[in-house]
Amino acid sequence: MPQVDTARFLKDLHELRKIGAYKTGVHRPTYSPEDMESRRWLMERMAECGLEPAIDGIGNVIGRHPGAGPKLLVGSHIESQNQAGWLDGALGVMAGVALARAGLPVDVIAFADEEGHYGGFIGSRSFIGELPEEEIDRLANRYHGKPLRQALREAGLEGKPRIQREPGRHKGFFELHIEQGTQLESAGQQVGVVTGIVAIWQWRITIEGMQDHAGGTTMAERRDAGLTAVRLLAMLDERMPMACGPRSTWTCGRISLDPGAASIIPGRAEVLFQFRDVEEPILHRMEACLRACVQEANRRERCTVTLEAMSLSKPALCDPAMQAALAAAAEQLAPGGWRRMPSGAGHDAQYMAKVMPAAMLFSPSIGGISHHWSEDTKDEDLAKCVEVLAEGAARYLAS
Amino acid sequence: MPQVDTARFLKDLHELRKIGAYKTGVHRPTYSPEDMESRRWLMERMAECGLEPAIDGIGNVIGRHPGAGPKLLVGSHIESQNQAGWLDGALGVMAGVALARAGLPVDVIAFADEEGHYGGFIGSRSFIGELPEEEIDRLANRYHGKPLRQALREAGLEGKPRIQREPGRHKGFFELHIEQGTQLESAGQQVGVVTGIVAIWQWRITIEGMQDHAGGTTMAERRDAGLTAVRLLAMLDERMPMACGPRSTWTCGRISLDPGAASIIPGRAEVLFQFRDVEEPILHRMEACLRACVQEANRRERCTVTLEAMSLSKPALCDPAMQAALAAAAEQLAPGGWRRMPSGAGHDAQYMAKVMPAAMLFSPSIGGISHHWSEDTKDEDLAKCVEVLAEGAARYLAS
Repeated sequence: MPQVDTARFLKDLHELRKIGAYKTGVHRPTYSPEDMESRRWLMERMAECGLEPAIDGIGNVIGRHPGAGPKLLVGSHIESQNQAGWLDGALGVMAGVALARAGLPVDVIAFADEEGHYGGFIGSRSFIGELPEEEIDRLANRYHGKPLRQALREAGLEGKPRIQREPGRHKGFFELHIEQGTQLESAGQQVGVVTGIVAIWQWRITIEGMQDHAGGTTMAERRDAGLTAVRLLAMLDERMPMACGPRSTWTCGRISLDPGAASIIPGRAEVLFQFRDVEEPILHRMEACLRACVQEANRRERCTVTLEAMSLSKPALCDPAMQAALAAAAEQLAPGGWRRMPSGAGHDAQYMAKVMPAAMLFSPSIGGISHHWSEDTKDEDLAKCVEVLAEGAARYLAS
Repeated sequence: MPQVDTARFLKDLHELRKIGAYKTGVHRPTYSPEDMESRRWLMERMAECGLEPAIDGIGNVIGRHPGAGPKLLVGSHIESQNQAGWLDGALGVMAGVALARAGLPVDVIAFADEEGHYGGFIGSRSFIGELPEEEIDRLANRYHGKPLRQALREAGLEGKPRIQREPGRHKGFFELHIEQGTQLESAGQQVGVVTGIVAIWQWRITIEGMQDHAGGTTMAERRDAGLTAVRLLAMLDERMPMACGPRSTWTCGRISLDPGAASIIPGRAEVLFQFRDVEEPILHRMEACLRACVQEANRRERCTVTLEAMSLSKPALCDPAMQAALAAAAEQLAPGGWRRMPSGAGHDAQYMAKVMPAAMLFSPSIGGISHHWSEDTKDEDLAKCVEVLAEGAARYLAS
């Protein structure tokens, strides 16, 4: 059984936490100075434990194991959402380093921009050969609009080759991540063995109306894009429950009204709307519901509503043999303190699952809080999870 | 019946249009060289028709009638919004000059900064004694931040006394202005007799929820501030029509979701909501409706909704006798071609109405366009309106 130095693992995590520290969390948006500092810091940790570190043209950091024989790929992402949690992503990367320190034959990877500041999973997609140059040309930061090419240049990554996986090198990919929900906490459990990762279908809804003076224009004359957005979202709030499944989620994360002034009728509105599920038939039912609501809005309203699919991912089921190894390890080290569960969030593992066996382990999230600086997990839970991951990895390698 | 030289009136307007010309409009921001040139040009026109012109310490230009007997005050503002229309404001000032040329006993005034480059109606408020020195010390340009004191110094106005109205001198204030809407145009009418200037009640609605991950958090666990905002605005969309009057308007100009990312449940939402009407009882009914909806949201939702009044202005009703005189003149000179209507936008007249009888006349706006260089009105409509204004003024003086 592999001996993991959990104290060192926690020490590494807390050291990484200092880079871009924000309150008790971190602010390390992709390609920011803080993000790049954390990637350089990671490469030093990799070198310490005998891995050969490299950073590639999209910002992925990979530490390759020099030895012969079958290997595992272990990791996650290291950048954060804005002013978000210290563990999300970073936990899975440092767990990879901990397994390497424990002598397991692992390559450790930190993918770039899993959090989607510039695109969707561009690091893991690049690694499996699903990120064309034309998409890199097109992408820009969703918050401040900086083109991805410019961000890569400023981060010193321009011109570096993009590293892709070597077919046959990895027996599988393991990713440890925080649950980002409350199921483990409410059940008083320490470990979640993930059965599958939901698909996320992300949409942009654009509404074109007529910008006008809020005093001079009568209610009858108006083509208020903001009001049309509100009515459409209220319709979705009523109808999505009839289309969705028991574990489905849907979210409107942003509503932008243009120009956004108190006394001007909005001439344009943009809405970000997404839904998630593990079952494709349910995803298709939710899409049909969304399209029907947009169609009805275009029939009812004086504004024009346009629906655009930004990204439609596929649900990813975790590899049965890897799940079994993790489950056996969990039962050995945390008897009764673990459960199988789906992941409601997207993870790099869903892209690795397209090209190799992949599995995930969840640690509890205190209060289920995630993507917020107050996100946290108990040290003893973190330690337990990295031990279960190491034992599961060893069992899977031996299988 | 007063004989207005409408050709001369139009000639004056088109001459003024050349000062700070921008495309087919003008760019005369308050206290800019172009604005000051237009004020000096105006003083020459005033002197030509026997008025005694003066400019005061806030930039107001007033041309006093030398004769004895009851007088009217007629005017508006002469500066423009940035790259805006040639008539807005200037029309009402030159209409005053036209009435003076026609021999009516009028003082003509061009107030400073009705457009709010530095403050809110500082010219008209100074004229009625409602602009304290401390506020002048405090104000700065909203676009480039130059302090008002500096702007007054650079315009050569520093140290000049501020002219205030002489109580008892004026029997009333008349202001001719463009409609800034499409009601006259769509009705094919030439003249609007204004019943009053709406009050604007501006509110900020703040919603506190819980920021969470859009995948890891089940629908049942969520406290989505954005969804609460949508439901509240949809409720207002349904209920305001039951509380409002025939001419009321209400507008949500901004919805901000925090943090505003596709995969994060908004933890906070801020909404700007305003309504306008000329009648206080209707304003109070709309406030009651708004408060009831907020109360219901706080009962139904898992988020906390807070309502804050940002500004509550008072409606300014136009003087009934002056309205009657304008209406009679309109019916005489444009039978069937006029209507009574409220002003949805604010005007200098609303401050004059605090200290003397006041009334307004609207000319049509082509396409309802306002605060844009393409703003325009047909010459024949401009001529008709100045004739109605002169006849109405004569009738009111005789009453």
